Amino acid sequence: MEEFAEAIVRKFQKELNAGTVSLVLLAILARAEEPQYGYQIAKQLEGASDEGVPVKQGTLYPVLRSLEGQGLLSSRVEPSVSGPPRKYYSITEQGVSVLEDWKDVWSRTRDFVDGTLEGGRG
Amino acid sequence: MEEFAEAIVRKFQKELNAGTVSLVLLAILARAEEPQYGYQIAKQLEGASDEGVPVKQGTLYPVLRSLEGQGLLSSRVEPSVSGPPRKYYSITEQGVSVLEDWKDVWSRTRDFVDGTLEGGRG
Repeated sequence: MEEFAEAIVRKFQKELNAGTVSLVLLAILARAEEPQYGYQIAKQLEGASDEGVPVKQGTLYPVLRSLEGQGLLSSRVEPSVSGPPRKYYSITEQGVSVLEDWKDVWSRTRDFVDGTLEGGRG
Repeated sequence: MEEFAEAIVRKFQKELNAGTVSLVLLAILARAEEPQYGYQIAKQLEGASDEGVPVKQGTLYPVLRSLEGQGLLSSRVEPSVSGPPRKYYSITEQGVSVLEDWKDVWSRTRDFVDGTLEGGRG
Protein backbone atom coordinates (compact mmCIF):
# COMPACT_ATOMS: atom_id res chain seq x y z
CA MET A 1 0.00 0.00 0.00
CA GLU A 2 2.81 2.39 0.95
CA GLU A 3 4.75 1.59 -2.22
CA PHE A 4 1.59 1.90 -4.26
CA ALA A 5 0.98 5.39 -2.84
CA GLU A 6 4.56 6.38 -3.66
CA ALA A 7 4.10 5.22 -7.25
CA ILE A 8 0.95 7.36 -7.51
CA VAL A 9 2.86 10.41 -6.25
CA ARG A 10 5.72 9.81 -8.71
CA LYS A 11 3.22 9.48 -11.56
CA PHE A 12 1.65 12.79 -10.55
CA GLN A 13 5.04 14.55 -10.48
CA LYS A 14 5.79 13.15 -13.91
CA GLU A 15 2.46 14.40 -15.26
CA LEU A 16 3.05 17.88 -13.85
CA ASN A 17 6.54 17.94 -15.35
CA ALA A 18 5.17 17.13 -18.80
CA GLY A 19 4.12 20.73 -19.30
CA THR A 20 6.24 22.63 -16.81
CA VAL A 21 9.67 21.41 -17.96
CA SER A 22 9.09 22.79 -21.48
CA LEU A 23 8.03 26.12 -20.01
CA VAL A 24 11.03 26.35 -17.69
CA LEU A 25 13.54 25.41 -20.41
CA LEU A 26 12.12 27.98 -22.78
CA ALA A 27 12.28 30.65 -20.05
CA ILE A 28 15.90 29.80 -19.24
CA LEU A 29 16.91 30.02 -22.90
CA ALA A 30 14.95 33.27 -23.35
CA ARG A 31 17.12 35.03 -20.80
CA ALA A 32 20.42 33.39 -21.78
CA GLU A 33 22.82 35.86 -23.34
CA GLU A 34 24.41 33.20 -25.49
CA PRO A 35 23.55 29.68 -26.72
CA GLN A 36 23.60 27.05 -23.94
CA TYR A 37 24.40 23.35 -23.98
CA GLY A 38 22.61 20.71 -21.95
CA TYR A 39 24.84 20.71 -18.89
CA GLN A 40 24.71 24.52 -18.58
CA ILE A 41 20.93 24.43 -18.78
CA ALA A 42 20.78 21.68 -16.15
CA LYS A 43 22.98 23.79 -13.83
CA GLN A 44 20.60 26.73 -14.16
CA LEU A 45 17.66 24.45 -13.41
CA GLU A 46 19.40 23.35 -10.22
CA GLY A 47 20.13 26.95 -9.29
CA ALA A 48 16.46 27.84 -9.68
CA SER A 49 15.33 25.33 -7.07
CA ASP A 50 15.86 25.60 -3.32
CA GLU A 51 15.12 22.05 -2.39
CA GLY A 52 16.21 19.83 -5.24
CA VAL A 53 14.86 19.97 -8.75
CA PRO A 54 12.03 17.57 -9.55
CA VAL A 55 13.62 17.13 -12.99
CA LYS A 56 16.39 14.69 -13.83
CA GLN A 57 19.06 15.82 -16.29
CA GLY A 58 18.31 12.88 -18.58
CA THR A 59 14.76 14.11 -19.04
CA LEU A 60 15.96 17.47 -20.39
CA TYR A 61 17.34 16.20 -23.67
CA PRO A 62 14.13 14.79 -25.15
CA VAL A 63 12.34 18.01 -24.16
CA LEU A 64 15.04 20.17 -25.80
CA ARG A 65 14.74 18.08 -28.97
CA SER A 66 10.96 18.38 -28.91
CA LEU A 67 11.14 22.18 -28.50
CA GLU A 68 13.54 22.31 -31.42
CA GLY A 69 11.20 20.12 -33.48
CA GLN A 70 8.42 22.63 -32.83
CA GLY A 71 10.61 25.49 -34.07
CA LEU A 72 10.90 27.12 -30.63
CA LEU A 73 14.64 26.44 -30.30
CA SER A 74 17.46 26.18 -32.79
CA SER A 75 20.75 24.41 -32.21
CA ARG A 76 24.26 24.13 -33.54
CA VAL A 77 26.85 21.48 -32.74
CA GLU A 78 30.37 22.60 -31.86
CA PRO A 79 33.47 20.57 -31.12
CA SER A 80 34.71 20.64 -27.53
CA VAL A 81 38.37 20.39 -26.55
CA SER A 82 37.49 18.50 -23.39
CA GLY A 83 35.16 15.80 -24.78
CA PRO A 84 32.49 15.00 -27.37
CA PRO A 85 30.92 17.79 -29.47
CA ARG A 86 28.33 19.91 -27.70
CA LYS A 87 24.91 20.92 -28.95
CA TYR A 88 24.20 24.58 -28.21
CA TYR A 89 20.58 25.73 -28.04
CA SER A 90 19.12 29.20 -28.65
CA ILE A 91 15.52 30.36 -28.51
CA THR A 92 13.96 31.35 -31.85
CA GLU A 93 11.72 34.33 -32.53
CA GLN A 94 8.77 31.92 -32.60
CA GLY A 95 9.97 30.56 -29.24
CA VAL A 96 9.97 34.03 -27.67
CA SER A 97 6.42 34.59 -28.89
CA VAL A 98 5.16 31.17 -27.74
CA LEU A 99 6.80 31.67 -24.34
CA GLU A 100 4.62 34.72 -23.71
CA ASP A 101 1.50 32.68 -24.51
CA TRP A 102 2.68 29.79 -22.34
CA LYS A 103 3.28 32.14 -19.41
CA ASP A 104 -0.34 33.30 -19.67
CA VAL A 105 -1.58 29.70 -19.80
CA TRP A 106 0.60 28.84 -16.81
CA SER A 107 -0.64 31.79 -14.70
CA ARG A 108 -4.28 31.03 -15.43
CA THR A 109 -3.86 27.31 -14.71
CA ARG A 110 -1.84 27.98 -11.54
CA ASP A 111 -4.43 30.42 -10.19
CA PHE A 112 -7.22 28.02 -11.07
CA VAL A 113 -5.56 25.14 -9.21
CA ASP A 114 -4.66 27.31 -6.21
CA GLY A 115 -8.19 28.69 -6.13
CA THR A 116 -9.66 25.20 -6.07
CA LEU A 117 -7.28 24.02 -3.35
CA GLU A 118 -8.00 27.08 -1.21
CA GLY A 119 -11.72 26.45 -1.57
CA GLY A 120 -11.14 23.43 0.66
CA ARG A 121 -9.95 25.56 3.57
CA GLY A 122 -12.70 28.20 3.61
CA MET B 1 2.43 30.13 -38.62
CA GLU B 2 -0.32 31.67 -36.49
CA GLU B 3 -2.29 28.40 -36.49
CA PHE B 4 0.84 26.46 -35.73
CA ALA B 5 1.54 28.68 -32.70
CA GLU B 6 -2.04 28.17 -31.50
CA ALA B 7 -1.63 24.40 -31.76
CA ILE B 8 1.54 24.62 -29.65
CA VAL B 9 -0.31 26.62 -26.99
CA ARG B 10 -3.21 24.13 -26.94
CA LYS B 11 -0.75 21.26 -26.60
CA PHE B 12 0.87 23.03 -23.65
CA GLN B 13 -2.48 23.57 -21.92
CA LYS B 14 -3.30 19.90 -22.44
CA GLU B 15 0.02 18.85 -20.93
CA LEU B 16 -0.49 21.08 -17.90
CA ASN B 17 -3.99 19.68 -17.44
CA ALA B 18 -2.67 16.12 -17.39
CA GLY B 19 -1.58 16.49 -13.78
CA THR B 20 -3.65 19.39 -12.53
CA VAL B 21 -7.11 18.06 -13.39
CA SER B 22 -6.54 14.97 -11.20
CA LEU B 23 -5.42 17.20 -8.33
CA VAL B 24 -8.39 19.53 -8.66
CA LEU B 25 -10.94 16.71 -8.89
CA LEU B 26 -9.51 15.01 -5.82
CA ALA B 27 -9.59 18.31 -3.91
CA ILE B 28 -13.22 18.95 -4.88
CA LEU B 29 -14.27 15.46 -3.76
CA ALA B 30 -12.26 15.80 -0.53
CA ARG B 31 -14.36 18.74 0.58
CA ALA B 32 -17.70 17.43 -0.72
CA GLU B 33 -20.08 16.56 2.10
CA GLU B 34 -21.72 13.83 0.05
CA PRO B 35 -20.94 11.79 -3.06
CA GLN B 36 -21.01 13.82 -6.29
CA TYR B 37 -21.88 12.89 -9.85
CA GLY B 38 -20.10 14.20 -12.92
CA TYR B 39 -22.32 17.18 -13.63
CA GLN B 40 -22.12 18.40 -10.03
CA ILE B 41 -18.33 18.15 -10.12
CA ALA B 42 -18.20 20.04 -13.43
CA LYS B 43 -20.34 22.83 -11.92
CA GLN B 44 -17.92 23.20 -9.02
CA LEU B 45 -15.02 23.34 -11.44
CA GLU B 46 -16.75 26.19 -13.26
CA GLY B 47 -17.41 28.00 -10.01
CA ALA B 48 -13.72 27.79 -9.10
CA SER B 49 -12.63 29.69 -12.18
CA ASP B 50 -13.13 33.39 -12.83
CA GLU B 51 -12.39 33.45 -16.50
CA GLY B 52 -13.53 30.16 -17.98
CA VAL B 53 -12.23 26.76 -17.00
CA PRO B 54 -9.46 25.35 -19.17
CA VAL B 55 -11.09 21.91 -18.71
CA LYS B 56 -13.89 20.51 -20.83
CA GLN B 57 -16.57 18.44 -19.12
CA GLY B 58 -15.88 15.48 -21.40
CA THR B 59 -12.31 15.28 -20.14
CA LEU B 60 -13.48 14.81 -16.54
CA TYR B 61 -14.90 11.34 -16.95
CA PRO B 62 -11.73 9.52 -18.00
CA VAL B 63 -9.89 11.24 -15.13
CA LEU B 64 -12.56 10.21 -12.62
CA ARG B 65 -12.34 6.62 -13.86
CA SER B 66 -8.54 6.71 -13.64
CA LEU B 67 -8.66 8.03 -10.06
CA GLU B 68 -11.10 5.26 -9.18
CA GLY B 69 -8.81 2.69 -10.83
CA GLN B 70 -5.98 3.92 -8.59
CA GLY B 71 -8.15 3.43 -5.49
CA LEU B 72 -8.39 7.17 -4.76
CA LEU B 73 -12.12 7.37 -5.45
CA SER B 74 -14.97 4.94 -5.05
CA SER B 75 -18.28 5.10 -6.87
CA ARG B 76 -21.81 3.81 -6.77
CA VAL B 77 -24.45 3.97 -9.47
CA GLU B 78 -27.94 5.14 -8.55
CA PRO B 79 -31.07 5.41 -10.66
CA SER B 80 -32.27 8.92 -11.45
CA VAL B 81 -35.94 9.88 -11.87
CA SER B 82 -35.02 12.45 -14.52
CA GLY B 83 -32.75 10.41 -16.81
CA PRO B 84 -30.15 7.66 -16.99
CA PRO B 85 -28.55 6.27 -13.79
CA ARG B 86 -25.89 8.48 -12.23
CA LYS B 87 -22.47 7.47 -10.98
CA TYR B 88 -21.69 9.09 -7.63
CA TYR B 89 -18.05 9.48 -6.62
CA SER B 90 -16.54 9.71 -3.10
CA ILE B 91 -12.93 10.09 -2.07
CA THR B 92 -11.39 7.06 -0.31
CA GLU B 93 -9.11 7.09 2.73
CA GLN B 94 -6.20 6.39 0.35
CA GLY B 95 -7.37 9.33 -1.77
CA VAL B 96 -7.31 11.71 1.22
CA SER B 97 -3.78 10.62 2.01
CA VAL B 98 -2.54 10.88 -1.60
CA LEU B 99 -4.16 14.32 -1.93
CA GLU B 100 -1.91 15.65 0.85
CA ASP B 101 1.17 14.33 -0.96
CA TRP B 102 -0.03 15.73 -4.29
CA LYS B 103 -0.56 19.16 -2.72
CA ASP B 104 3.07 19.14 -1.58
CA VAL B 105 4.26 18.13 -5.05
CA TRP B 106 2.09 20.84 -6.59
CA SER B 107 3.39 23.59 -4.26
CA ARG B 108 7.01 22.66 -4.87
CA THR B 109 6.56 22.45 -8.63
CA ARG B 110 4.59 25.71 -8.74
CA ASP B 111 7.22 27.59 -6.73
CA PHE B 112 9.95 26.11 -8.87
CA VAL B 113 8.28 27.24 -12.09
CA ASP B 114 7.43 30.68 -10.72
CA GLY B 115 11.00 31.06 -9.44
CA THR B 116 12.39 30.24 -12.85
CA LEU B 117 10.03 32.62 -14.65
CA GLU B 118 10.81 35.44 -12.19
CA GLY B 119 14.51 34.89 -12.79
CA GLY B 120 13.89 36.28 -16.27
CA ARG B 121 12.72 39.65 -14.96
CA GLY B 122 15.51 40.45 -12.50
